[in-house]
Amino acid sequence: MQLLKNCLTLITLFIFLCASAQKHPIVYCTKSDIIFIKSKLNDNELIKKSYSDIKASVDFWIDKDVDVPFPKDPAGGYTHEKHKDNYTLMFNSSMLYQLTGEEKYADLVKKLFIKYAALNPTLKNHPEAKSKYPGHIFHQALNDANWLVYAGLAFDGIYNYLTASERKKIADGALKPEVDFFTGELKDWFALIHNHAVWACAGVGIAGIATDNDDWVDKALYGGNKDRKSGFVANIDGLFSPEGFYTEGPYYTRYSLLPFFLFANSLQHYKPELKIFNRKNNVLRKSLYNALQQTNLDGSFFCYNDALKDKTFITNEIVEAVDIAREVFGEDKNLLPVVVQQKRVTLSRGGISLAEEISRNKNIPRYYPYQSIEFTDGANGDEGGVSILRSGANEKLTSLIFKYTGHGLSHGHFDKLNINLFDEGNEIITDYGAVRFVNIEQKYGGRYLPETKTYSSQTIAHNTIVADEKSHFNAVEDASQAHHSNKLFSSIGGNVQVVSALDTNAYQDIKLHRTIYMLQLPNNPKPLTVDIFRAVSATQHQFDLPFQYSGTLMSTSFPYKTFGTNQTTMGKKFGYQHLWKEAEGKYNNPLAQFTFLNDKTYYSISSLSDDSTQFYFTRIGANDPNFNLRREPAYLIRKKGNNQTFINVLEIHGGYNSVTETSTNAYSSVKKITLLRNDPEYSVAEVMIGEKPLLLIQCNSNYKSAEKHNIIINNKALQFAGPFVVLYDGKEL
Amino acid sequence: MQLLKNCLTLITLFIFLCASAQKHPIVYCTKSDIIFIKSKLNDNELIKKSYSDIKASVDFWIDKDVDVPFPKDPAGGYTHEKHKDNYTLMFNSSMLYQLTGEEKYADLVKKLFIKYAALNPTLKNHPEAKSKYPGHIFHQALNDANWLVYAGLAFDGIYNYLTASERKKIADGALKPEVDFFTGELKDWFALIHNHAVWACAGVGIAGIATDNDDWVDKALYGGNKDRKSGFVANIDGLFSPEGFYTEGPYYTRYSLLPFFLFANSLQHYKPELKIFNRKNNVLRKSLYNALQQTNLDGSFFCYNDALKDKTFITNEIVEAVDIAREVFGEDKNLLPVVVQQKRVTLSRGGISLAEEISRNKNIPRYYPYQSIEFTDGANGDEGGVSILRSGANEKLTSLIFKYTGHGLSHGHFDKLNINLFDEGNEIITDYGAVRFVNIEQKYGGRYLPETKTYSSQTIAHNTIVADEKSHFNAVEDASQAHHSNKLFSSIGGNVQVVSALDTNAYQDIKLHRTIYMLQLPNNPKPLTVDIFRAVSATQHQFDLPFQYSGTLMSTSFPYKTFGTNQTTMGKKFGYQHLWKEAEGKYNNPLAQFTFLNDKTYYSISSLSDDSTQFYFTRIGANDPNFNLRREPAYLIRKKGNNQTFINVLEIHGGYNSVTETSTNAYSSVKKITLLRNDPEYSVAEVMIGEKPLLLIQCNSNYKSAEKHNIIINNKALQFAGPFVVLYDGKEL
Repeated sequence: MQLLKNCLTLITLFIFLCASAQKHPIVYCTKSDIIFIKSKLNDNELIKKSYSDIKASVDFWIDKDVDVPFPKDPAGGYTHEKHKDNYTLMFNSSMLYQLTGEEKYADLVKKLFIKYAALNPTLKNHPEAKSKYPGHIFHQALNDANWLVYAGLAFDGIYNYLTASERKKIADGALKPEVDFFTGELKDWFALIHNHAVWACAGVGIAGIATDNDDWVDKALYGGNKDRKSGFVANIDGLFSPEGFYTEGPYYTRYSLLPFFLFANSLQHYKPELKIFNRKNNVLRKSLYNALQQTNLDGSFFCYNDALKDKTFITNEIVEAVDIAREVFGEDKNLLPVVVQQKRVTLSRGGISLAEEISRNKNIPRYYPYQSIEFTDGANGDEGGVSILRSGANEKLTSLIFKYTGHGLSHGHFDKLNINLFDEGNEIITDYGAVRFVNIEQKYGGRYLPETKTYSSQTIAHNTIVADEKSHFNAVEDASQAHHSNKLFSSIGGNVQVVSALDTNAYQDIKLHRTIYMLQLPNNPKPLTVDIFRAVSATQHQFDLPFQYSGTLMSTSFPYKTFGTNQTTMGKKFGYQHLWKEAEGKYNNPLAQFTFLNDKTYYSISSLSDDSTQFYFTRIGANDPNFNLRREPAYLIRKKGNNQTFINVLEIHGGYNSVTETSTNAYSSVKKITLLRNDPEYSVAEVMIGEKPLLLIQCNSNYKSAEKHNIIINNKALQFAGPFVVLYDGKEL
Repeated sequence: MQLLKNCLTLITLFIFLCASAQKHPIVYCTKSDIIFIKSKLNDNELIKKSYSDIKASVDFWIDKDVDVPFPKDPAGGYTHEKHKDNYTLMFNSSMLYQLTGEEKYADLVKKLFIKYAALNPTLKNHPEAKSKYPGHIFHQALNDANWLVYAGLAFDGIYNYLTASERKKIADGALKPEVDFFTGELKDWFALIHNHAVWACAGVGIAGIATDNDDWVDKALYGGNKDRKSGFVANIDGLFSPEGFYTEGPYYTRYSLLPFFLFANSLQHYKPELKIFNRKNNVLRKSLYNALQQTNLDGSFFCYNDALKDKTFITNEIVEAVDIAREVFGEDKNLLPVVVQQKRVTLSRGGISLAEEISRNKNIPRYYPYQSIEFTDGANGDEGGVSILRSGANEKLTSLIFKYTGHGLSHGHFDKLNINLFDEGNEIITDYGAVRFVNIEQKYGGRYLPETKTYSSQTIAHNTIVADEKSHFNAVEDASQAHHSNKLFSSIGGNVQVVSALDTNAYQDIKLHRTIYMLQLPNNPKPLTVDIFRAVSATQHQFDLPFQYSGTLMSTSFPYKTFGTNQTTMGKKFGYQHLWKEAEGKYNNPLAQFTFLNDKTYYSISSLSDDSTQFYFTRIGANDPNFNLRREPAYLIRKKGNNQTFINVLEIHGGYNSVTETSTNAYSSVKKITLLRNDPEYSVAEVMIGEKPLLLIQCNSNYKSAEKHNIIINNKALQFAGPFVVLYDGKEL
């Protein structure tokens, strides 16, 4: 009887195991996906190259004993890089096993897993751990989560090659310690609404699906105690605005899209009834597309908040997301220019499909279809946002970013109402991004450097007003995180694009009100940007408006004095201690002009000034004991008083051809700027472009689009509807 | 009788005129060239594009009244740019006339000439003239010479369209005033051995051939008084070394090759018996090829002496020279990668031939066939020279330039024994070049800026020893021009490349002796450079050896102090006044290491040091009242004493991949540097590369290649022949 019972148990187990085995692979792709991919591997060059690159990277390790070292080094060091390489190798080798059936690939993965199964249960906090959330294999838990994601994918890929006891040994030894660590000791971290938690949830969930462990899957989806307050779904709901704007900004959107897409993709296979990709009105798809909109012509992500400038959409994260999006949402030719630049596809149904579309399609545009676009911030879309104003096509594209978001969690900067300008593929009015050299061991193990806090996140590192040499919210993250700016009105597309936004929280007794006009004047190949920035206060302040520019100073209309033999800093705190004061000037003239050359194009900033306005030329690099900062310049305009209004006209003009050595249109066409009216009701500015007046009228309190206004300008009555009107040479633009 | 005489005169004149007409065109190309070119205009895309670009640029002006303004502006200003545009337009339109037969093109040229014929006789010195040799149409005579060259080409092109009286009117009114000005008022300038005089001779000579004026041609060839001491031929003989090294360096080689080739080309048609292209053993051809060897992977010319970094071989000057060389010297596939990058050809027999070769040839290498190469300097090849050591292929190419030339006329720098390093297409150990923004009006009318003299030509702006904070020859051009350094020995190509050179004139009581080894160690993808720089003196001095580097400082092995809140200059004169002292360090250790990252590659400088060695980090930008200087860094090693020897190992290692965020081999492999012996006979250095010794032995007095040497090193007897030997891990490299 006991024998029969044992037999029955064994049979039940056998049936269960068979059923499980039939279910796998299911995480990264399914059995039918594999059949499809195998049939296409020789279809075109892009697929062949993508496949052979992976094969070469794995074949190098076949028959070699791959090291699984005891964790010791920070990012950039040997053990860190080795464990990173190992999880990629495990995943790639598991894919090759599935696509070729060759056991050597599965065996390579198994041997690595056996080593991790021995190592992982012995690990405590990493010796180089410095953060609140330490890792075991790596210095921070985030990297352990990366490992778990890929280990889970690899486990699923060789599931059918492993015996039941091997599966158990690996699941218990290699995967479970990480899952337990995340959901136990690090449960606060696991419960965050933050990209780290997304990685952790994806890791636990993918490991759960791979090992047939629904408990892990449920914890991943709905939080450690499954109450839906945290977990993957709560992160989808909480981290994106309704348009898919990710609160930390485009650089981290890129990073977080990978776990979002990888786990969602496996849920699509494992729990299709969840319709995870349709959650929040397809917000994952929107997030990908909106991240692509937030790139420069070279594919690099706009670098506001903590960001590194060399990150583009050719990174692995976006390759995966684009290819999965293709599979889930179907064909979209807008993705093709991106895939062409990525120069590879994943070995997935979506990747193969994209490669085939590219080989079929002979007229793929060179660039992603960039357009003017606006995003709200906040889970409900009511916490400010970002507007991107664009003009021009292809390599001539101009993009202006106007940011009036919330803070953006731990990677946010104190940069309310900041602007950045890109033109012809170059960053012109710049954002420093983060001070960090990712994974370069010599630079503090590749972690964020202290100057990210002391300089690049401070207000003075941006292109917005700093009052009294103090950063917005006194550079207190929690204070900033509690607030956001608000858009007052906007109109995008067309010859007159305008966005007006207000911040009332960055300083206690100052309202910052900025309105950006991007105007397409007749017969001008480039847009003209007018920036009306009102600092409204009942009390006296010093207001600094810096423009971080990239280029070589050509000329100024005003005299200045340089500090040629002895240079001191601009200040002592809030980032000013990192700025050398290179020069200062004053000008007894209402128009101050500053022209620089970037690449082959001239840029001028024409400013309304008076005899109390001061001009400074600054350069980053003071108090930089480890040479972490780039020596970049800024042009700073300082005004003092209570209500102060900055009017700056940013002009893109002319060009220099170094082959023919010819210079054209090297001077600004702005001849005069006048602030005709400026009160709680209206601001009216007149800018003389050559001989022709450009008149900008905006409402400062009533923003209703239907509202009719009557206003007297230069002794002439003028009527208009809505919150603004722009006239050029007497006619509405 | 008188009537008959008049008739005969007229007939003679008529015959002469017909003969003349039949002779033209002859300057830029001949009648048979035109027939050949016409037959090929639709042969391939490169020709079609080259033709249509020219046609579009001319067609824009057809039926428009082209302005010939009274000269007023400096470079970059309207009148300057207009006259430049006009001479290009005249030449191009004359070519289109010949190729299409359409009179509108000839008419356009004629109308412009008529305006110049009215303007030129009225001109005096240009109002913006600041140089010793003022121009009439432009601020300097050089530009007037440019004008005359192209005007001459254009005149020849429409010769047959003009009536005899029109020809006379133009020759007398437009051309003669310039010829008379050059050969009269500016006869000293016309008599120079200098690129300006080459332009002037080419202008006068081309105008002479175009107008059938042999007097002008002879003056052009043999000088104003035809005594052969000056003029075109004397310039060919005097400005090039026997290998075709042009004394002012590659940037000006590019510039001077244009008049050399254009005038030589017309002489080839007009006076083939001169065999001008074979002069001095084909020195013009050698000069072109050697200029091409002196470029970086992107085609930019090495920027020693006065030079701008954005000048590449795609400029018009090199397009013309390459195409003429093809015509004169026949097919050479080595030129094809250059033409591919130029993306255009001239409408000439050579240009058409190259375009056809490109369309036929499917396997054109991406890069010009760069190689290690040495040039002597001086008309007779006995005034020092330049060695270029190379290693690696294609985009991995490493190029080291070691300069021990004469001064290089007015565009030379005080940089005896300077080195520069290029790697993977980037300039790593840099040369500032000149401080100038060519033709940008805001920058001093595009002329050389004062900082060229005060900074970039000074020794401290280079990578060679400065003694006692004074430049070589006290920065006196005439003193420097009277001397040159000398090569002692060299060996190029192979695993051990070495060049040793000596300068005994830069300082009165100091011998500068530098030996550069570029070594290919086994299993190392990149070459290792060892730089043994001996400063030999009987008296005490301060020796500074700076390395101008391009990149981001990653780490140093030694501690240093930064001047974080208050920065002062490195000195007061000889360029030191333009350097901020960013940091200084000392190190009680015989090995000091400095690592930086450029693009994706690490570079380390490992230096022999002792406890009196000082290290400085400097940055350009002090005393720069007009923001003319780039803010570039340098690493400066300072030693004091009489005989001081600097040993520096330049290592190229590892890499950073920003897509995968992986860093490999980020640290130098140099563990120790020892100077085992250093006396008038020998210098012996040992460099530990990891665990393996690299032993460098060089002779300091006997450089005979056959000489046998016995020397005791580390208590072991060692024999070798010739002036040096390098052993790695005990075996000769």
